[in-house]
Amino acid sequence: MMRTHYCGTLTEALLEQTVTLCGWVHRRRDHGGVIFLDMRDRDGLVQVVIDPDTPEAFATADRVRSEYVLKITGRVRARYAGTENANMISGQIEVLAKEIEVLATSETPPFPLNDDFTNVSEENRLKYRYLDMRRPEMLERMRFRSKVTSQIRNYLDENGFLDVETPILTRATPEGARDYLVPSRTQPGSFFALPQSPQLFKQLLMVSGFDRYYQIAKCFRDEDLRADRQPEFTQIDVETSFMDDEDIMTMMEGMIVKLFDNLMGVKFDKFPRMTYAEAMRRFASDKPDLRIPLELVDVADLLQDIEFKVFAAPAKDPKGRVVALRVPNAGDLSRGKIDDYTKFVGIYGAKGLAYIKINDITKINNGLDGKETGLQSPIVKFFPDAALQTIIERTGAQNGDLIFFGADKAKIVNDAMGALRIKIGHDLGMSTTEWAPLWVVDFPMFEEVGDGQWTSVHHPFTLPKVSVEEMKADPGAATSVAYDMVLNGTELGGGSLRIYTVEMQKAVFEALGISDEEAADKFSFLLDALKYGAPPHGGLAFGLDRLIMLMTGASSIRDVIAFPKTKTAECPLTQAPAPVEPNQLRDLGIRLREKPKADDAKA
Amino acid sequence: MMRTHYCGTLTEALLEQTVTLCGWVHRRRDHGGVIFLDMRDRDGLVQVVIDPDTPEAFATADRVRSEYVLKITGRVRARYAGTENANMISGQIEVLAKEIEVLATSETPPFPLNDDFTNVSEENRLKYRYLDMRRPEMLERMRFRSKVTSQIRNYLDENGFLDVETPILTRATPEGARDYLVPSRTQPGSFFALPQSPQLFKQLLMVSGFDRYYQIAKCFRDEDLRADRQPEFTQIDVETSFMDDEDIMTMMEGMIVKLFDNLMGVKFDKFPRMTYAEAMRRFASDKPDLRIPLELVDVADLLQDIEFKVFAAPAKDPKGRVVALRVPNAGDLSRGKIDDYTKFVGIYGAKGLAYIKINDITKINNGLDGKETGLQSPIVKFFPDAALQTIIERTGAQNGDLIFFGADKAKIVNDAMGALRIKIGHDLGMSTTEWAPLWVVDFPMFEEVGDGQWTSVHHPFTLPKVSVEEMKADPGAATSVAYDMVLNGTELGGGSLRIYTVEMQKAVFEALGISDEEAADKFSFLLDALKYGAPPHGGLAFGLDRLIMLMTGASSIRDVIAFPKTKTAECPLTQAPAPVEPNQLRDLGIRLREKPKADDAKA
Repeated sequence: MMRTHYCGTLTEALLEQTVTLCGWVHRRRDHGGVIFLDMRDRDGLVQVVIDPDTPEAFATADRVRSEYVLKITGRVRARYAGTENANMISGQIEVLAKEIEVLATSETPPFPLNDDFTNVSEENRLKYRYLDMRRPEMLERMRFRSKVTSQIRNYLDENGFLDVETPILTRATPEGARDYLVPSRTQPGSFFALPQSPQLFKQLLMVSGFDRYYQIAKCFRDEDLRADRQPEFTQIDVETSFMDDEDIMTMMEGMIVKLFDNLMGVKFDKFPRMTYAEAMRRFASDKPDLRIPLELVDVADLLQDIEFKVFAAPAKDPKGRVVALRVPNAGDLSRGKIDDYTKFVGIYGAKGLAYIKINDITKINNGLDGKETGLQSPIVKFFPDAALQTIIERTGAQNGDLIFFGADKAKIVNDAMGALRIKIGHDLGMSTTEWAPLWVVDFPMFEEVGDGQWTSVHHPFTLPKVSVEEMKADPGAATSVAYDMVLNGTELGGGSLRIYTVEMQKAVFEALGISDEEAADKFSFLLDALKYGAPPHGGLAFGLDRLIMLMTGASSIRDVIAFPKTKTAECPLTQAPAPVEPNQLRDLGIRLREKPKADDAKA
Repeated sequence: MMRTHYCGTLTEALLEQTVTLCGWVHRRRDHGGVIFLDMRDRDGLVQVVIDPDTPEAFATADRVRSEYVLKITGRVRARYAGTENANMISGQIEVLAKEIEVLATSETPPFPLNDDFTNVSEENRLKYRYLDMRRPEMLERMRFRSKVTSQIRNYLDENGFLDVETPILTRATPEGARDYLVPSRTQPGSFFALPQSPQLFKQLLMVSGFDRYYQIAKCFRDEDLRADRQPEFTQIDVETSFMDDEDIMTMMEGMIVKLFDNLMGVKFDKFPRMTYAEAMRRFASDKPDLRIPLELVDVADLLQDIEFKVFAAPAKDPKGRVVALRVPNAGDLSRGKIDDYTKFVGIYGAKGLAYIKINDITKINNGLDGKETGLQSPIVKFFPDAALQTIIERTGAQNGDLIFFGADKAKIVNDAMGALRIKIGHDLGMSTTEWAPLWVVDFPMFEEVGDGQWTSVHHPFTLPKVSVEEMKADPGAATSVAYDMVLNGTELGGGSLRIYTVEMQKAVFEALGISDEEAADKFSFLLDALKYGAPPHGGLAFGLDRLIMLMTGASSIRDVIAFPKTKTAECPLTQAPAPVEPNQLRDLGIRLREKPKADDAKA
């Protein structure tokens, strides 16, 4: 090996020893006729001193610049008193260079990689990703990611899970997002699809008797990208047989608990369980952020008959929802701040944000009969006294509190008030803990997308909790044996028990309006497999990128992926995607559609 | 958990205990009014006995068939003396069932999965892969594969390698095979390519300072398939900085040594090293099978001036080769067998297979001057006595031996005689050892493909052993710092040190006839990266599928992949590739080329 030690690992234990380092010039200073180089490798920095007593080394050091690659041999010595750096592992020592070899030179990087790195556009960072990842912050994230996958693999190996690779060139999978397609050369006109998940393959492995499977698997979705989405992403994919939902949750919870303990020293208690219904009722979200102690309270029953239609109409509508959100000690929130929150809920489609300030809890009335009221609100006059009394009781409001209201279609209320709950909680510093994990269980089987049209809440292979007959009778009431692991309001992973009989699988396809022909065309191999002794099975998949993002506190999913794509699914580094040669297309039996000319497009 | 134990793990240690098993009915027998079920799970088989004393269980057992999935609770008891089965871990015991639950029924499988499995077509096995993988042989291979990757990861983790994922949707890579293309929806007319290897990304990670990288990576090549190729295959991909070729070989050898020791109890000595030149000279192969002790001996210098043009012409041709292959104790090989070998070398383009049988080593002459000759051969008359004498000396031939000859263009001789060497060695049972690993080193940098046209023997990023000037002066003489690990005549993996200066990289592109424009178009990001302080680096990639195939003794690469493609790159299970909807193509800005009509094609 060229080096004896990594820069960042040198300590006083090596005093007076000769070491050889290989790394990059992080920073160069000339000071008092002596040259100081901060040398960097993946383990950190060390200060190297070159003085004129070693003229050859000094001459070399004199011409090196930032990001040159050097091999340096020298003696470890204590720093002069007062020049120690407590922020560095190697801060008590320095290396007095004897020999310096320039292994590679460097032009001036397009952006600085040391402390001067600031305000660099993401486009530029991605174009020069190999330089961006030299920054210790980035390199540490990638290293952390490697540790996470290693820990996860060890846990799953120890628990008897087999790592099995499933195909990347495969058939369109049923997750419902847009597939990436790969033209076949040997069958022109036919296409492979890149998998949106290994779902069907892992179920088939259970049919094969693999019993416990895992894979850290690349998955692909050709969707328009949001901040936390990538065209290719990585899933910790798990499937087991002969285990029930409790067994699976316990096993997977154990993995996450161990991961946080081993890598971050975070100790979790047993994760709370919450039904989907309760999560929606109390937090208006199927992935509630339990760090925020604020809760929603339903009040529709109190307001169905009032004259104020903004509340009465959704209160009477079976698809409407009316909620109150008590915010303790927020009675002094300024008009401007309330206006900001009103705009915020507007993003989610809410048409306004009603509120009541609680000034004096002994005077709960709407003041219409001339009585002095302890409530301050533009809308309090619409509310009967009894309703006000019950709202105060249900929310537990106290003097100095503020109550916000949401009243609209349930989806708008949930989106808007669920988001507002979290925003206010963070704004007012109400977070009660750093990490708040939980399981959300008992999801509905289906979601209504049109009149009598149903879609799967998870996917069509999820096992219902009800019989075929019950499901057919009332699809909307059917729940599934599905479970999501949620951390700090983010879905870390989700899974379910799977259907393992032909009868139930066909019934679910039918409920989803998938014709027998379509089912046979797309899923005949699954339906076939279920005929030959499929074991009860279930599993789960975690989003690895999102997990790493949460654990490292990165603000973008792109910061935890070595070579990510931009929001327009491009790679500024390699310039992918790129045009190809006409003969490549000919081989594949495809041609480009002619683009409308620019003029036509404008016209 | 539904089960208390896996079937295959039950032993006498559990006598008289109550256990619950989950698994498949492997075989059912009725014998003496009692029902015997061989129950199977991934850990093996156990015999379950159901007698009429438990009428409910008996009634259930009476209707179960092969491949039903059962949950059985019962008591472990010793088998009756004389009915033990020494071939099973659980062969000393059986389980007397108390309760049986049918978890899933099964139709009769399309082929039997127990000992009756025989002569099933591969097409059928792949179509019903989920059943094929129930066979213990297949399941064990997949399990072994999982152990191999686990061991490899542990070794690399322990040695400080970081597991980093590189993109699947990327730019065309330079390995030279045909790329799989993925049309971009956001940039119609542009395409991603699936990587043929992570080569450039791993080099960029070295430029980033990751120092030690690995990935068990999916790679893709759209080539016509041979028995040991798949459209997608898996590579153990490694790259390091600041290590020389010896360091890298030692590190990687350590990994393979540990793997074979831990998983198979095979102990390797230090792997021998052999230059490419020596391997070609002695074994006519860059991946010599050293289990076979036969060697080739060059004899062109002895035969340049003889009248027999079949030998003299290639002996004089600088691109020709003439070799002798001594086969000890093969003098009694029948004429028919020699004819078979003549046909065999014909596959490789050899026009014949000359031979000499050594009957009496004291009489080495061609017999033309009337002297009695101890040599028996149709061609011996063309050889001068002195040449015969030297050939015997060089080959070390003894009475009873046979010497084969190859004379043709060097490529044909190498292909034919290299293959013949191995075939004869196996036919005659000459293998001296079960496992024969070695490193082949000092590969040529380039291979001539046309007049003055050169191609890379490895890839264009391989570091030459010579200077830019020397390389330009004589590309054919330049060797590279490249190394292949070979086991039993199979290339397990290969790698090299990489070019890390712009100057050398450009010179190699130039030698390969890659224009500046093409280099800038395809590799500008690499050339850019080399400007900013690239460390000396190198690495290696192993073919995981082939490694597993060798270790498990599987006869096809498809037998070590869970869901492989056929030789025509199709998946009989999922019917991939498949037609897609017209609107999907429209989204991607492509259309199908019209096929010539069947009638036209016939005309």
